[in-house]
Amino acid sequence: MSQEPLLDQLIEALRCLPGVGPKSAQRMAFHVLERNRDGARHLATTLHKACDQIGHCERCRNLTEGSRCNICKSPSRDRHLLCVVESPSDVIAIERATGFRGQYFVLLGRLSPIDGIGPSELGLDELKTRLKSGEVSELIIATNPTVEGEATAYYLQEVAAEHSVEVSRIAHGVPLGGELEFIDQSTLAMAFSSRQRLSN
Amino acid sequence: MSQEPLLDQLIEALRCLPGVGPKSAQRMAFHVLERNRDGARHLATTLHKACDQIGHCERCRNLTEGSRCNICKSPSRDRHLLCVVESPSDVIAIERATGFRGQYFVLLGRLSPIDGIGPSELGLDELKTRLKSGEVSELIIATNPTVEGEATAYYLQEVAAEHSVEVSRIAHGVPLGGELEFIDQSTLAMAFSSRQRLSN
Repeated sequence: MSQEPLLDQLIEALRCLPGVGPKSAQRMAFHVLERNRDGARHLATTLHKACDQIGHCERCRNLTEGSRCNICKSPSRDRHLLCVVESPSDVIAIERATGFRGQYFVLLGRLSPIDGIGPSELGLDELKTRLKSGEVSELIIATNPTVEGEATAYYLQEVAAEHSVEVSRIAHGVPLGGELEFIDQSTLAMAFSSRQRLSN
Repeated sequence: MSQEPLLDQLIEALRCLPGVGPKSAQRMAFHVLERNRDGARHLATTLHKACDQIGHCERCRNLTEGSRCNICKSPSRDRHLLCVVESPSDVIAIERATGFRGQYFVLLGRLSPIDGIGPSELGLDELKTRLKSGEVSELIIATNPTVEGEATAYYLQEVAAEHSVEVSRIAHGVPLGGELEFIDQSTLAMAFSSRQRLSN
């Protein structure tokens, strides 16, 4: 409590950001007020604009300003390859790390009956329509290797089979630079059971 | 790079906050867009309002909405005790931890000739006027125990002497719960040389 209501309101408002507790919020408030008011005004304007203008792509559910995202609009992306991810940040991670030239479908969540999240909440009806159209030749499942992510992957695999679309799952195992000694048991077990035959 | 210009702008704008790098900025942007647009809009509005309306108290230089801060305006605060701190967050820390009922003077910095920060940048002319008025009976120096903070404390001590005002410095030493074994050498040396005689 700073004895100044507007300052306290600002500190409180900053806590809507993830990972920002009371101490960091206070530090941020003082920092911008004392040293970077222009930056703070720009942030405020951009936040308003982003909240008003960014919606979801009608085709892949990724975040975008228009009705379709730039990846869906791009003529140079391969429409036959469709990668299913849980969230928009997964798209960025894949774009950054891989040379994937196909398109995406963003679930915006994962199957979780306990939280009331079923296939329709994840837009799987739209996905089915897309698979039915025959445009997709391979569905690449890139959900997270968590319990819900695995359940979602299993469900997607069934959906792909129904529509006779080839389906694959990104590999899980020991990360590069990881040491067997320090890897958790489930990852090591998974790496072992998913071992790949080497040709010689 | 998300392929979406407005989203990238938002991620970039969030980096004006202290301690927010590219990864956290991305996480924050996705979090607010996916889960808390109302919170983000409220933050944007409050940021704009705070940047426009919060200025400095004409009397103590603390951050405030009006021309004088609530501590300077309060009739219940003792005007004879004046505590000098470097920044507004120091005021909050002292308010939270101590029962201090006097008033403050916020330097908004510390003496640092290399960065062109001299007595006038710290508002010391205003402080001198206040000391000259005879209203202050004790000046409590609470600058940080850094090289610049110590130099500032020394300067403030001279100023107080010039105006025949009693002056004190908050104690520095081993923090409560700290163990001698793990305390840094300078703090321990300071604690040793500032030892206080116990009456018996």
